[in-house]
Amino acid sequence: MTPPDRSEPAETVQDARVARTRADVSRAALQVLTSEGADALTHAHVAEIAGYSKTTLYTHWPARVELIALALDAIGDFPHQEPTGDLRTDLVGELRIFRQAVIDFRLDQILSVMAQWASVEEMAQIRDRINGGGQRPIREMLGRVFEGPGLEAAISMLSGVVACPTMMFGALPDDDVIDAAVDLILRSAPA
Amino acid sequence: MTPPDRSEPAETVQDARVARTRADVSRAALQVLTSEGADALTHAHVAEIAGYSKTTLYTHWPARVELIALALDAIGDFPHQEPTGDLRTDLVGELRIFRQAVIDFRLDQILSVMAQWASVEEMAQIRDRINGGGQRPIREMLGRVFEGPGLEAAISMLSGVVACPTMMFGALPDDDVIDAAVDLILRSAPA
Repeated sequence: MTPPDRSEPAETVQDARVARTRADVSRAALQVLTSEGADALTHAHVAEIAGYSKTTLYTHWPARVELIALALDAIGDFPHQEPTGDLRTDLVGELRIFRQAVIDFRLDQILSVMAQWASVEEMAQIRDRINGGGQRPIREMLGRVFEGPGLEAAISMLSGVVACPTMMFGALPDDDVIDAAVDLILRSAPA
Repeated sequence: MTPPDRSEPAETVQDARVARTRADVSRAALQVLTSEGADALTHAHVAEIAGYSKTTLYTHWPARVELIALALDAIGDFPHQEPTGDLRTDLVGELRIFRQAVIDFRLDQILSVMAQWASVEEMAQIRDRINGGGQRPIREMLGRVFEGPGLEAAISMLSGVVACPTMMFGALPDDDVIDAAVDLILRSAPA
């Protein structure tokens, strides 16, 4: 283990301060995004919620897209369930958790800003991390019974059962629709 | 046929002027949304593009959400294809047209703002009109072979094949993924 470099204490203190500011602003930005929506995510409002000056925010993160990236960066891993080993039970469970996360984490707002800023490279990386991580258990489970284009289709289709009504109609699927989707996929799995 | 009411010519001229302003601003707002994204949809910028004063825009549509509603209102019906009568061909065709519309109409940006403002009643109505109309042919086709929760699941699943990669990863599905999704759905249709 390397001992801390004592020759530059001022810089170390400075680095720690910047890291703390970043973490504070990042959490405040996510709070604003999920409680008030993307339009409320301004330098002035996030500064107020985080307890920093507007100047501090503009100095470190001059563009609005940087504030949005900070907010998304504060999103941890989405919750997943402990698999039981039964494919149908586990797929239904994952989709119910995804549905609950739409409510708990305001995934509709988060997916919306990710789509809106999709062409910005920094956002693309954050988006791939969050959405790739969110889909991973479903990808792994479906990978046992599908492959190739069928696997890609099945992953988008099961994600769509929750994401499409959420994004397109502001509504969540009932349990029987989730069950029907999983049964539909499993009925069509190659033997 | 009732003759035009000649007793209030000033009011009629005024109404026509407001309607024309509304149509101009609505088209300009949609142009800004699809070419520059939701963040560029401000009173100042839309006024500039539409060739009206900022004051005119603020007078008629004081809130930003009203500008967004105006933009969405300018969206006509989405293109659909002439059905051949063959279910597989027609479903594949609709999904390819949906994929093309993501590019031509910047559906990613449009879906994004609709999701972002989903809690505003006026937006909910516009969203239901646009998305309900967009899904109608797929709903009718799948309605021939599915019903109840299975029908709702199948509609979201096929929409999801295009919408999920678009919204979650900024990517469009290849032809073979669209084909695989339609085959998966049709394989599982009740006999």
